[in-house]
Amino acid sequence: MSIVAVGSVAYDSLKTPYGERERVLGGSATYFSIGASLFSHVNLVGVVGEDFEDTDLDLLKSRNVSLEGLVHRPGKTFFWKGEYGENLNEAITHDTQLNVFAEFNPEIPNSYLDSSIIFLGNIHPALQGKVIDQIGKGRFVVCDTMNLWINETRDDLLKVLKETNLLFVNEGEAKLLTGEKNTIRTGRKILEMGPQMVCIKRGEFGSILMNKENIAMVPAFPVEKVVDPTGAGDTFAAGFLGHVARTGKLDFPTCREAVKVGTVLSSLEIEDFSVERLKTITMEEINSRLEEYRKIIS
Amino acid sequence: MSIVAVGSVAYDSLKTPYGERERVLGGSATYFSIGASLFSHVNLVGVVGEDFEDTDLDLLKSRNVSLEGLVHRPGKTFFWKGEYGENLNEAITHDTQLNVFAEFNPEIPNSYLDSSIIFLGNIHPALQGKVIDQIGKGRFVVCDTMNLWINETRDDLLKVLKETNLLFVNEGEAKLLTGEKNTIRTGRKILEMGPQMVCIKRGEFGSILMNKENIAMVPAFPVEKVVDPTGAGDTFAAGFLGHVARTGKLDFPTCREAVKVGTVLSSLEIEDFSVERLKTITMEEINSRLEEYRKIIS
Repeated sequence: MSIVAVGSVAYDSLKTPYGERERVLGGSATYFSIGASLFSHVNLVGVVGEDFEDTDLDLLKSRNVSLEGLVHRPGKTFFWKGEYGENLNEAITHDTQLNVFAEFNPEIPNSYLDSSIIFLGNIHPALQGKVIDQIGKGRFVVCDTMNLWINETRDDLLKVLKETNLLFVNEGEAKLLTGEKNTIRTGRKILEMGPQMVCIKRGEFGSILMNKENIAMVPAFPVEKVVDPTGAGDTFAAGFLGHVARTGKLDFPTCREAVKVGTVLSSLEIEDFSVERLKTITMEEINSRLEEYRKIIS
Repeated sequence: MSIVAVGSVAYDSLKTPYGERERVLGGSATYFSIGASLFSHVNLVGVVGEDFEDTDLDLLKSRNVSLEGLVHRPGKTFFWKGEYGENLNEAITHDTQLNVFAEFNPEIPNSYLDSSIIFLGNIHPALQGKVIDQIGKGRFVVCDTMNLWINETRDDLLKVLKETNLLFVNEGEAKLLTGEKNTIRTGRKILEMGPQMVCIKRGEFGSILMNKENIAMVPAFPVEKVVDPTGAGDTFAAGFLGHVARTGKLDFPTCREAVKVGTVLSSLEIEDFSVERLKTITMEEINSRLEEYRKIIS
């Protein structure tokens, strides 16, 4: 199975307790594509500006990533500047420059139409809806979202959820979306909003995967040194959907295993800044950590 | 194996989002003894006042609990009045009357000396130390503690930890004890303080069991309706040590399984006020929920 990945491609300036980096490669579609391409072919949809470096294009080309849907526009690439304090779960944003991303209007090239999985990264739900209109039908539609869209564009988001097969959502966002306080009841409410499956992400406390018949509680991998948490959620989604794509199955047991692959891939990703760790990860490393992880959670 | 359980026996007045109860049976040794007696013989050490009801004595006697170490003193039984808001992880204390518990000086009856496991409930570490002096040697010493003792009686606590085989500790308390922010590193630091094993409890996020060679991440049972969280920690310890006692083994795989039994027992306990649910629980119910739990975490 191929995956269409729609989202931001960006440059980030980051500060964490382990150091600083200026204008390094970032964005939800970037993390997702590099991560998922370890498992499956990825068709990227995004937009970059004139400042986008050839070396970064080459990185994406060198992976199993199609770039026909990556549009180049006059102007600058989306830029985000942020910082993580001791609480690595929350970023403090110092600057956001949407640049060419402000006019992002995702168009799906014909060559992408044979994809079976559509990953809608964390962008405006109206744009997610446009992608669903173009290519959602009969495909496995996976959606990510955030507080901003839940608060500001709730109606658009609810429309997207009706067409969504699997929602990735942080625990706090899930509670905000449903107005529910108990996490399991939160999951049940989301399943009534459209998605057949929901994966509630709890950061260092692991994830919960639910459909109407099943619940899976999956612990986090015990990471001792988080160098840069940027991209952890998108890399989790990459491991998850990469595993689903390589097996070609969409049932609950496959998705439960996919949570573990996503957990392990993101636990590796956060060990270095930006996509540095993702660049060098091998399938052997993933499998070796998966084995270690299975011992810890078995 | 028999277990000696040292801790408070109390009356609690409770308010939770699900209702109120006046002067119901409580206390760490009470929850622990009733819970663990489902699996093994328990030798209780505690103190009650003249107001302690015969029906409550009868309840303990009706279980597999020896009461030779339960001292009756002139005065009133330890009383606690508290409330839980929407955040069920934190109790607001309205009143604490130590009463006869203020002079509690645990003495171990000779008939308890054949016990192999010593559970030191959350009491002043100097008292925990006295119990260790009397019966700790060569036995499996298990200790619970809290913020108050970490802040106010740190030296006493550090002495106790040197003699402790297994420490039960909440995540926040563990971080307070070690000054460490990462949970896994917190666990490693605790293992340097004396205990051969530590179980870090994360409430609705599950538990982490660690010794120097192993880590086990164990999810919580997904409870949808927490009626009264009082006693959850002691009931967790009861299921844990009850399982260890019935198997007669102290190795890591047994303790990892014990975390699951503790998780399941406490998930049942919090479904009703005080010890109401513990009174009626059968081994069949425990095993049935364990089976459900294994599906959720497998």
